[in-house]
Amino acid sequence: MCTTPPRCGALEDIVTDSPRGAAEFDLIARIRQRATARDDVVLGIGDDAAIVQVPPGRQLVIATDTLNRGVHFPDDTAPADIGWKALAVNLSDLAAMGAQPAWCTLSLSLPHADVAWLDGFLDGFLELAAPHRVALIGGDTTRGPLSICVTVHGFVEPCRALRRDSARVGDDVWVSGTLGDAAGALAQWQAGGARDSWLRARLDRPTPRVLVGHAMAGAANAGIDISDGLLADLGHVCTASGVGAVIELDALPTSASLRGGFDPERRRVLQTSGGDDYELCFCAPAEARIAINTIGAEHATAVTRVGRIVAEAGVVAIDRNGQPWQPAHRGHEHFGR
Amino acid sequence: MCTTPPRCGALEDIVTDSPRGAAEFDLIARIRQRATARDDVVLGIGDDAAIVQVPPGRQLVIATDTLNRGVHFPDDTAPADIGWKALAVNLSDLAAMGAQPAWCTLSLSLPHADVAWLDGFLDGFLELAAPHRVALIGGDTTRGPLSICVTVHGFVEPCRALRRDSARVGDDVWVSGTLGDAAGALAQWQAGGARDSWLRARLDRPTPRVLVGHAMAGAANAGIDISDGLLADLGHVCTASGVGAVIELDALPTSASLRGGFDPERRRVLQTSGGDDYELCFCAPAEARIAINTIGAEHATAVTRVGRIVAEAGVVAIDRNGQPWQPAHRGHEHFGR
Repeated sequence: MCTTPPRCGALEDIVTDSPRGAAEFDLIARIRQRATARDDVVLGIGDDAAIVQVPPGRQLVIATDTLNRGVHFPDDTAPADIGWKALAVNLSDLAAMGAQPAWCTLSLSLPHADVAWLDGFLDGFLELAAPHRVALIGGDTTRGPLSICVTVHGFVEPCRALRRDSARVGDDVWVSGTLGDAAGALAQWQAGGARDSWLRARLDRPTPRVLVGHAMAGAANAGIDISDGLLADLGHVCTASGVGAVIELDALPTSASLRGGFDPERRRVLQTSGGDDYELCFCAPAEARIAINTIGAEHATAVTRVGRIVAEAGVVAIDRNGQPWQPAHRGHEHFGR
Repeated sequence: MCTTPPRCGALEDIVTDSPRGAAEFDLIARIRQRATARDDVVLGIGDDAAIVQVPPGRQLVIATDTLNRGVHFPDDTAPADIGWKALAVNLSDLAAMGAQPAWCTLSLSLPHADVAWLDGFLDGFLELAAPHRVALIGGDTTRGPLSICVTVHGFVEPCRALRRDSARVGDDVWVSGTLGDAAGALAQWQAGGARDSWLRARLDRPTPRVLVGHAMAGAANAGIDISDGLLADLGHVCTASGVGAVIELDALPTSASLRGGFDPERRRVLQTSGGDDYELCFCAPAEARIAINTIGAEHATAVTRVGRIVAEAGVVAIDRNGQPWQPAHRGHEHFGR
């Protein structure tokens, strides 16, 4: 009765509700040729739904995020960068939970069928999917203003997820990578002046810290990814955990490009309130310091202690003299807001 | 270390990437108050991702579909109807697989924060979610042209799913409910003349045949939901299964409203090529006829044999004289295409 299914079916579903034309079939051919296979995909693209198998002893982690043109990326963003980022922001959510990615669905709204755009989009999307072994298992394409909705699925061992509600008073606050780069790129783009290509790459091709996040699941108490700015996102952790945090401004990891492009006060705003870096912020007890530094080294990713969790509610940023510093505003500095 | 999680967390994630304002918090309050709980949701809305537990011995079924204003529903559609339909089209995909729904995520793009619209949308969305015990476990809201992306998750026992590639020569072809109603409503709306409210309800509030589909998983060989029109969707089954089909036009189940509103030739077009009914089409061996009629009766849903699977490729519709009939065009008669 139940024969071995084709690994990646007839792919019709990707053209259901499509702006019809030869373009879709080119797209299908590209996807079928290039999509990453996985043994736990019982039925991939091509039916009304996909069927997958969650490994025994694992819980399923699910995140979804949409990118809209003019809101989440500048109009001049290359299709491949849009494809990369659409998956990256979702993988970043899995990373923030300490989950191991497995599958994703892609829902694409396109104003018209544009083969070149679609090919470019897939280039970036699949370039990021491949090293993380993320299988594209379904989705649809629809006519409409450019919008990309991705849903990602991953696994965690029970009770190992990095939740927002588990920070403890006395925990160190850590961040991965450097902060403020994406917001710096956005500021340069909006000002229309000189642009730093390294910063722009940080905006267009954020690196989801998947391996670091997964490794941290055994060492840290709580975690979040920095999509809306350090103070805002750490604020979510503090609220959920019923704690507060103190951040040392001078400890924030800063790239050479950001240091070279902005004066110190502007830099502080970008690093505390700028979104889109998709670095991880996590909270861990002091006894985990060696383990966390080892994880960073093993994955060639900077991990920096930037503050500590305190009992008093709120997130306070302090300067080198221990004086509280107040940014112009907190968080949500996305493009177009 | 791992304390019992709150059933439905802090809900921050639903406002991440949001058009900020008081509206979101009203939305959150409404969702928290009204969302269906489930014991298998380890961590609901409020973190970077949701965590859920798939029952032992079940495979996971995943489908995603996006609705865009001006493409999938007329501009005058009530928010509650949009909410209902956004979930219904996704549940219909699970029904077509014979899967039992469990969880969903919702990604909402809104031009601006509109509390009344959001409340209405949730009314319809949750009205359909509740009886099917579908828990809303995550999502995001984003600024952009009105667009709703829903991803649904359900379960099937291994090898019991109703796939498209498993129709057998000699199978009966069945459909649930009546056909052509949604397309009839659309035709009336587009013509701007008299409108039948029952037909319009079939367009705006399609009934996903979840219980029937789940029961059919033990009786039928193959299935699909009719979103693009009977001939087109049955064509997908035939292509995937390497077979063909013959449909008897006079056997197609017809509502009184459709019969009263359209002449016979127009009706045939609507019933064979009109989309959006979200009825099921399934293929089953002759020995399952009694079982299938029993399933229909148990769920108060008409099930009608409308044709048979044949070896020769293609889907042919025949009239009462056995003569092939060719519609003006096949499938994809959605709004706005």
